[in-house]
Amino acid sequence: MSLIVQKYGGTSLGSLERIEEVAKKVIGWHERGHQIMVVVSAMSGETDRLVKLARGITFRPNPRELDVLLATGEQVTMALLCIALEKRGCTARSYTGGQVRILTDSSFNKARIRDIQMDAIRSDLDTGLIVVVAGFQGVDEEGNITTLGRGGSDTTGVALAAALKAKECQIYTDVDGIYTTDPRVVPDARRLNRITFEEMLEMASLGSKVLQIRSVEFAGKHNVPLRVLSTFKEGPGTLITFEEELVSEPMEKVLISGIAFNRDEAKITILGVPDRPGIAFNILGPISDANIEVDMIIQNVGRDNTADFTFTVHRNDYERTLEILREHTSRMGAREVSGDNKIAKLSLVGIGMRSHAGVASQMFQALAKEMINIRMITTSEIKISVVVDEKYLELGVRALHEAFDLAKSS
Amino acid sequence: MSLIVQKYGGTSLGSLERIEEVAKKVIGWHERGHQIMVVVSAMSGETDRLVKLARGITFRPNPRELDVLLATGEQVTMALLCIALEKRGCTARSYTGGQVRILTDSSFNKARIRDIQMDAIRSDLDTGLIVVVAGFQGVDEEGNITTLGRGGSDTTGVALAAALKAKECQIYTDVDGIYTTDPRVVPDARRLNRITFEEMLEMASLGSKVLQIRSVEFAGKHNVPLRVLSTFKEGPGTLITFEEELVSEPMEKVLISGIAFNRDEAKITILGVPDRPGIAFNILGPISDANIEVDMIIQNVGRDNTADFTFTVHRNDYERTLEILREHTSRMGAREVSGDNKIAKLSLVGIGMRSHAGVASQMFQALAKEMINIRMITTSEIKISVVVDEKYLELGVRALHEAFDLAKSS
Repeated sequence: MSLIVQKYGGTSLGSLERIEEVAKKVIGWHERGHQIMVVVSAMSGETDRLVKLARGITFRPNPRELDVLLATGEQVTMALLCIALEKRGCTARSYTGGQVRILTDSSFNKARIRDIQMDAIRSDLDTGLIVVVAGFQGVDEEGNITTLGRGGSDTTGVALAAALKAKECQIYTDVDGIYTTDPRVVPDARRLNRITFEEMLEMASLGSKVLQIRSVEFAGKHNVPLRVLSTFKEGPGTLITFEEELVSEPMEKVLISGIAFNRDEAKITILGVPDRPGIAFNILGPISDANIEVDMIIQNVGRDNTADFTFTVHRNDYERTLEILREHTSRMGAREVSGDNKIAKLSLVGIGMRSHAGVASQMFQALAKEMINIRMITTSEIKISVVVDEKYLELGVRALHEAFDLAKSS
Repeated sequence: MSLIVQKYGGTSLGSLERIEEVAKKVIGWHERGHQIMVVVSAMSGETDRLVKLARGITFRPNPRELDVLLATGEQVTMALLCIALEKRGCTARSYTGGQVRILTDSSFNKARIRDIQMDAIRSDLDTGLIVVVAGFQGVDEEGNITTLGRGGSDTTGVALAAALKAKECQIYTDVDGIYTTDPRVVPDARRLNRITFEEMLEMASLGSKVLQIRSVEFAGKHNVPLRVLSTFKEGPGTLITFEEELVSEPMEKVLISGIAFNRDEAKITILGVPDRPGIAFNILGPISDANIEVDMIIQNVGRDNTADFTFTVHRNDYERTLEILREHTSRMGAREVSGDNKIAKLSLVGIGMRSHAGVASQMFQALAKEMINIRMITTSEIKISVVVDEKYLELGVRALHEAFDLAKSS
C-alpha cells in the first residue's frame, strides 16, 4: 500500500461544491488502495479577506497576530473537507500545523519548517484514516502559530511527503501541468510531460506561479517525486523528476524547456561605490537583515575606481529597500542610489543549454529583432535571464517562444 | 495591581470599528493600572456563517470537525483585537484555547473545562502585557480542538478569572445589566444593581440570555464576582454577588428580583407508565445517554396503578427525544407518548420568596385574571415556574411584572 500526499489549492476548494468534488476525488484514490494524506489551502479569496480585515485596522499589523489570523483560513477548509469525507462514510481527521506538529522557526509571515513530528498521523494512516492537514502553517518552539508565506501549502505538502516517504506528492491546482510558458501570453504554449527539478526551480523562482519555489527545492532535496495536475480536468499533469530518469528514457531531446517571466521585481542601482573588498556585503547586509530577499545581483566596474552595483528585489520591498540604502549610502561613500520598478524579467530555462553554446546569442538576437532593449543580464548553468522594460514583457516572451520553437507540434 | 478579566461578546466585536472601540476601552483599564486579560467571542454572525458552511455539506457534520471549524471564529477576533492594541502601542498577545491551554473533556460541541494551565499567561500579565484569549474553545487531552457550546465564551472568562484569582470578571455585552425582565416585553423593566448568584442562576437557566448558566455556576462556585455591563454605554452594570454581601448593605428589600421566560423548550408526556421503582430512570436514562438535557420534570399518579410523566427538553431536541422514547415505550410498558413544542415557561425568581408564603398563589391569581391556563408547575426555594401555551408568553410576563410591582420607581 503506497502513500500519496495530495495538496489542493484555494481555487480547488473555492466553494462547498468544489470541496465535495475534492472529497470524491480523494475517496477515489483511497478506494484504489492508497493511503491518503491531504494538504489544503484556504478557500480562494479567504486569505485576502483576512488580510483585508487586518489592514482595515492598520497597514502594518503585528506579524505574530497576522499569522494567528491567517492560520484560520486553512483550518476552515480542513474541517469542511473532513465533514464532506465523513458524510460519505470515510473516516477522516484534520490536523492544524500545531497539532501535527509542524515545527518552524519564529519568522512570522515567512517561517521555515524545521521538523515534523507525526506519530499520531502515521498511526492514523496505518489504520486507514484519511488525514487532512492545514497547509501554510506551523508552530514555533514556544507554540506560537506561524505561517510559511504565500504558497506555503505546497511546502507543507512536500515536507509531509518527504517525512512520510510518500510515493508521490501531487499538487492539484487549476492548471493541468507546467507549460513552456504562460498560455495567456503565448496561446500555443505546450504542456511538458516531465521537467527536471533544476529546470522547475528556475521556472518557479522566475514566476511561473504554479508551484512555490521552496516546495520544489524541498522535493528535490528529499527525493520526493512531484506531480502538478488539475483538479478539474483528468490527465497526467507534469511530473517533476530527476535528470537521470529523463536520460534513461526515450524522450524528445530538448534544448530549452520553457520561458519564465516575472513582473514582481524592482531594480535598484547604487552608483559610484568605492571599489574595495566588502562592498557587496556592506550593501546587501542591511537588506538581508531586514529580511528582504534579493534576486539578481550584478556588479560592474564604474568610473574612478568605483563600482556600480545593481540588484533586484520583490516589488513590494522596493520602497523599504530604497529607504534602508539611503540611510547607509553616506557611510558606504556611494554617489547615488536609484531604482526602477517598471521592469520585467524574462528567462530561458533548459537543462539542454548546458551542452549547447549559442543559446544566449540566439536569445539576444530574437529580442533585438523586436527592438527590445536589454537592461540587465545574468546567466546560470541552465538559465539565461534578462531584465527589460515592463511594457515589452509579452512581446519578448512571444518572440523567444517562437525563436526556440516551443509551440505545440500540432 | 489588580487583575481584571473582561469578556467581550460578538456584538461588541461585530466590526473593525467596534474592535477598535474595544481596544480603546481595554487600554483605558490598563492605563488605570490594572492587569488586563481579555476573552473574546467570534464576531457576531461569524459562528452562524461557519455553521452554515458545515450544514451546506451535511445536516449532521462530524462533531470533531465542526469544533475545528467553529474555533476559527474566536481566533480571528483575538488576532484582530491584538492588532488593534499593538497599533496603539500596547504589547498584546493572543492565545487560542489550545495555546493557553484550556483542557476540556472530549464532548465535542459541548465540552466542559477540566483544567487550565497558564504559566505563560501569568508571566505575560506580570510583565505588563495585555493577554487576549479565544473564548468558547479548548483542547482535550489528545490535543483535539473542542468547543464549549454556544455562549461558552462567558465560561472561558469566568474560568480564567477563577484560575487567576481575578478581582472581577466583567462580561461586556449589548445590554447594560440584568433587568427585572426582558425590556422588549415589558418596556418599564428595571435594571438591577445587584443580584445574587442563586437568583442569577435561575434567571440564566430560564432564558435571560445575558449570561450563560455554566459561567454563573462557575463564578459562584469559585467566588468570582461577576459584572454584566454594556460595551456601548457607560454605567455600573449589574454586579452578581453573594447573599451575605447583599444583606450586610442597606438596600431595597426585595421579594422578587425578576421574571424569566423561555420559549426554547418543548414538553413531552408519557402516559400510563407502570408505577414501580425505576421508571424515572428507565425514561430519562436513554435521553441522558443521548446527551439531551432535561429541564423540568413532573410525575403524577395516573389511572390503574400507572403514572404520568412529563418533562421538558430544548426545542431542538424535541424530535430526537420523541424518537428515542418511542423506541423504548413498549419495553417500559407505557401507554402513550405525546408532546407539545408550542409552549413557553415563565418563572418568578427571588431570594426573598424563601421567607414569604403566598408568592405562588399571588402568581397563579395574576395569570388567572388574564385567563392564562397553566399546563405545568414546578417550584424551588427561590423560583416558581409555570408552563403555558406559547401565545400567552408576553401577556403573562407583563401581568406578573405588574402584579409584583417590579417597574421602575419613576
